[in-house]
Amino acid sequence: MSKGDQTRETILDEAVRLASQVGFTGLTIGQLADRTDLSKSGLFAHFRSKEQLQLQTLEHARRRFIDTTIRPALAVTRGEKRMRDLFDRWLVWESQMLPGGCIFVTGSIEFDDQPGPMRDALVADQRDWLETLATVARAGVEEGHFRPDIDPEQVAFELQSLMLGYHHSARLLGDDRALERARSAFEGVLERIHA
Amino acid sequence: MSKGDQTRETILDEAVRLASQVGFTGLTIGQLADRTDLSKSGLFAHFRSKEQLQLQTLEHARRRFIDTTIRPALAVTRGEKRMRDLFDRWLVWESQMLPGGCIFVTGSIEFDDQPGPMRDALVADQRDWLETLATVARAGVEEGHFRPDIDPEQVAFELQSLMLGYHHSARLLGDDRALERARSAFEGVLERIHA
Repeated sequence: MSKGDQTRETILDEAVRLASQVGFTGLTIGQLADRTDLSKSGLFAHFRSKEQLQLQTLEHARRRFIDTTIRPALAVTRGEKRMRDLFDRWLVWESQMLPGGCIFVTGSIEFDDQPGPMRDALVADQRDWLETLATVARAGVEEGHFRPDIDPEQVAFELQSLMLGYHHSARLLGDDRALERARSAFEGVLERIHA
Repeated sequence: MSKGDQTRETILDEAVRLASQVGFTGLTIGQLADRTDLSKSGLFAHFRSKEQLQLQTLEHARRRFIDTTIRPALAVTRGEKRMRDLFDRWLVWESQMLPGGCIFVTGSIEFDDQPGPMRDALVADQRDWLETLATVARAGVEEGHFRPDIDPEQVAFELQSLMLGYHHSARLLGDDRALERARSAFEGVLERIHA
């Protein structure tokens, strides 16, 4: 990695952390300059516009999410085990990787009524994620762990709902039992689809 | 209602609509002036600060939500019927009452990492809502519709998760099947707790 690439990685790591707390709308080049000890003009040269900063921060988060959550889960045996692993890894991503929790949850709400490149990128990310969940459910059917008549997209919708519910309960309400509740609901979903 | 009260209602109705689309952070006295044909200085006299505008908008949404969703559901027979009614009414609130969907979902994500009066008010609102859902579940047990060993707070968590999932799927992803998915997941929850 060249020095320029390293600086870029450092800036984007910090941007992802910051956006997880203040949202993409609250993310400013000024705040990012304070946090990284880089000059505002240097950062402007990197990103050129607030929208470019937002888009590159989202893209960076996407890479981090694939590296820490999706790729390792794909190394686990197909079917139920992989689904459990993926859910556990998402919980770690949400609760331990970023100070403000899952940045895709935050971004999804911020941009759901604002057409433009950020909304398009978030929609693409979320569709990929739902497809990943549905694919893992489908493989569970092929492996004989889940019933053949399940609707994999419905399973993906329900798992995604639980993740949003966990974010809400843990981050907004500070509920000590949020993790327990999310796990219990997850077992409920698995029970219903079990072969 | 005095003329002053009527003006106030009109302003707050518009503020709730606007905040549902652009968030409480995006809600400005300037935009509100444009939408209501009132002067900015007149609106400043009403609200004094952006935070006061946000808090009063949230309080107004809370009253609307109670009037249109909670109160009518409490008029329905206790137990399973009331739970179905409440869920249906929430879906109407989310999908038909405001241009940007449930304003409490939007606010919850905006303020989850920002301590202050808005976060406190949102937490109180969301706790009340979860308590309402748990109480309806508990009454269902008393009526013999739901099993006595269910955990009413867990039911509330799962229903709340579905609502967040529906908001995400319908608003961000524009999924035509969002309503069908939410209803199917709701039936799954009911099936699991049924006596």
